[in-house]
Amino acid sequence: MSSTVLLAPQWIAPVAAPRNPPDGAEDGTEDGSVLVDHAVVVEGDRIAALLPAAEARQRYPQARIVALPGHLLAPGFVNLHTHAAMALLRGVGDDLPLHRWLQQRIWPLEAKLVGAPFVRDGALLALHEMLMGGVTCVNDMYFFPEAAIESALLLGMRSVHGVIVIDFASAYASDAGDYLRKGLELRDRMRDEPLVGFCLAPHAPYTVGDAPLRQIAMLARELGLPIHTHVHETEEEVRESVQRHGMRPLERLAALGLVGPELIAVHAVHLDDNDLRLLADSGASVAHCPHSNLKLASGIAPAARMHELGICVGIGTDGSASNNRLDLLAEARTAALLAKGRSGNAEAWPAARTLRALTLDAARALGLDDRIGSIEPGKQADLVAVDLSAAELAPVFDPISHLIYGCGREHVQHVWVAGRHVVDRRQLSDANVRLQITEVVARTAVWHNRIGEILSGSA
Amino acid sequence: MSSTVLLAPQWIAPVAAPRNPPDGAEDGTEDGSVLVDHAVVVEGDRIAALLPAAEARQRYPQARIVALPGHLLAPGFVNLHTHAAMALLRGVGDDLPLHRWLQQRIWPLEAKLVGAPFVRDGALLALHEMLMGGVTCVNDMYFFPEAAIESALLLGMRSVHGVIVIDFASAYASDAGDYLRKGLELRDRMRDEPLVGFCLAPHAPYTVGDAPLRQIAMLARELGLPIHTHVHETEEEVRESVQRHGMRPLERLAALGLVGPELIAVHAVHLDDNDLRLLADSGASVAHCPHSNLKLASGIAPAARMHELGICVGIGTDGSASNNRLDLLAEARTAALLAKGRSGNAEAWPAARTLRALTLDAARALGLDDRIGSIEPGKQADLVAVDLSAAELAPVFDPISHLIYGCGREHVQHVWVAGRHVVDRRQLSDANVRLQITEVVARTAVWHNRIGEILSGSA
Repeated sequence: MSSTVLLAPQWIAPVAAPRNPPDGAEDGTEDGSVLVDHAVVVEGDRIAALLPAAEARQRYPQARIVALPGHLLAPGFVNLHTHAAMALLRGVGDDLPLHRWLQQRIWPLEAKLVGAPFVRDGALLALHEMLMGGVTCVNDMYFFPEAAIESALLLGMRSVHGVIVIDFASAYASDAGDYLRKGLELRDRMRDEPLVGFCLAPHAPYTVGDAPLRQIAMLARELGLPIHTHVHETEEEVRESVQRHGMRPLERLAALGLVGPELIAVHAVHLDDNDLRLLADSGASVAHCPHSNLKLASGIAPAARMHELGICVGIGTDGSASNNRLDLLAEARTAALLAKGRSGNAEAWPAARTLRALTLDAARALGLDDRIGSIEPGKQADLVAVDLSAAELAPVFDPISHLIYGCGREHVQHVWVAGRHVVDRRQLSDANVRLQITEVVARTAVWHNRIGEILSGSA
Repeated sequence: MSSTVLLAPQWIAPVAAPRNPPDGAEDGTEDGSVLVDHAVVVEGDRIAALLPAAEARQRYPQARIVALPGHLLAPGFVNLHTHAAMALLRGVGDDLPLHRWLQQRIWPLEAKLVGAPFVRDGALLALHEMLMGGVTCVNDMYFFPEAAIESALLLGMRSVHGVIVIDFASAYASDAGDYLRKGLELRDRMRDEPLVGFCLAPHAPYTVGDAPLRQIAMLARELGLPIHTHVHETEEEVRESVQRHGMRPLERLAALGLVGPELIAVHAVHLDDNDLRLLADSGASVAHCPHSNLKLASGIAPAARMHELGICVGIGTDGSASNNRLDLLAEARTAALLAKGRSGNAEAWPAARTLRALTLDAARALGLDDRIGSIEPGKQADLVAVDLSAAELAPVFDPISHLIYGCGREHVQHVWVAGRHVVDRRQLSDANVRLQITEVVARTAVWHNRIGEILSGSA
């Protein structure tokens, strides 16, 4: 079988920034173009060409053709923030505010459960859920990242892992230095794994002291790594920082050297004009997690304003303990709707711009926009094919509008990561992996019992 | 085959208000109970019994048993506000504010398209989408309701139709009196149709004058019909009413006699304390349409406050021109999340209370809570079975939490309306109806062309 594949969908949304943006146009913003009668040629792990279908068939006569009538082909979705392992804690702490949720449910459970087996099983469940919904790359932050990597590689997904740093001891590491050491050693071991990348991930300004934060800023510059941190999630966090440090959390991070193009500010809900300007001027990115912010009653991030200021915003599901459905497409829809509803401007976050947040902008935040995030020759073949021929989507006026506002993850039919066809007609291609999913689902009964025992105080 | 069916799911969420609420408990609010090892017995169109499974098998030895392992059985979902026919206009006017959306897109298209064929096809698409997602009863407002009724009956759905009244002429009727006459005649003709009901449906205070509104108030009392109207959707609407009438829209409706237990106030986004108190004191209901309100940038309704004040709130998808996905379960999830995010209270709209809004409270708003909305002996057998055994839902700690926060409509496996098993393992049971869905999808190509011609000015 030839390793050249010609994908021939009905529509293609390349999400590529225009090569030569017209004078005065915001870079890439207007690029909602949809190609018809075009094909994507995949060779090995890469996109070899994007060209008219007739020409593609002529130039690649040996290619295996995958016809995708009624489908929209788009770049794979990039989940800019999650804690995958927490899938095992889905629904154990609903309808609670952030601090009670953390203190009464999540932290006590984590203290007794977290270890490599918990992370491997939880991440396998979560990453499988995401992959089936079109996510090809995920930015994860959790203890025992080596176990999450194992699950991501089993599924054939691209993943970026936080070198997590927190001032408290856990089953994983004893102190900030130990966390850093373990994470960086793991990074060294994974050097030759093309699907695996790393961020520096100080948990949050309120859980990491000045000294490790300074060290992280230095490492980020030395190693060229993004910094992935929760920040300005709640009003309380901002207030406490002002009390304790005389500065708002972002000001403090800036003073310590962490606010620059490498920063991925997760949540970024409670921002004043100075905070917003700081993010914009420094070239930092935001990981917008609308469902988690609503569920924990943290608030609604000013996402329309962020776009106005040119801040790069990607979308994250967060973990399934605070967002029980790891559905990045639904998250994108909510992001688009919420931006309009909160700002009072129905033109905020239009469909095409939202698709970019779901793909290229998140890739850019991770420093991966030269490799993924759009359908362009030379980039990795991370792709999703979404079936728009379902009865509930007829007729189709604008495939990108349908993708963002009408589709659900149930319409994702095919997923490719680095050229591998990992999901084929809504099923994992690899029978061995399917079996392992069945097995991990069976094992959840054991986790369910242990969690029940811990919550009832009998463990 | 016996007409007695015994449904044996893993969990049942009856959503029944407690028969004898304890002193001081808010009526029904706390009822998030889940039954295990229980069965629902259906005889003809009714629920005959809800009892322990073992007892059910003994008492109904002739019953045909439908085993539903891993499933949650819940009352059918009630969509409290939609314009079903507008499915044909899905995606023609995205990212526009309400007034431009109406004036530049929707009204010009409707002027050229609306007639019985448009309504029949659009409603068939929309109602099919809803039914497959667990909606068993829908409250529709549109021109040519007889055509929407045809589609609802074809699908075997329960539906309530607005006797629409608007001061402007349309292809359907010439003036307020004509609208009323046509609607009431239709109601007479449908007298013996047990699945069809009616509301009085003045479009909005800003499109209907005082005289027809007064007449509607009188008719509502005489005929015992609910009043279904858009109200307080935008700030502009409220401001204009104050300018024109010296009163806010709800005050004006109250002065004209329309604000009472029969009122279903649709949207109800921009409410001050007096408006909220008026709704609460009068026993009126609200049809909360969170996605539509966000998409048109109308705002976010104070849904947490409504629950605090004891206002009965149901959930509506609105039409697919302003909410491109008629997914009531997703709408309920957003309602729950948004109530927390807007109020800052993570305990607002907990999962069980949200399920009640999705079922019994909407039934109550329609005056149908004696017949549908909960699983109780004597009520109509309008039921959904949701499969919680999918990998992305394991493990299950709380099935109601999973239903509201984790599930998607893709997990709805079975739907019964008035005892008829209309959706069986995600497929319409009736082959003839399946064929008609295929046919209507094919016809959307014709509608697509006509709409394209109108928008391009060539028709």
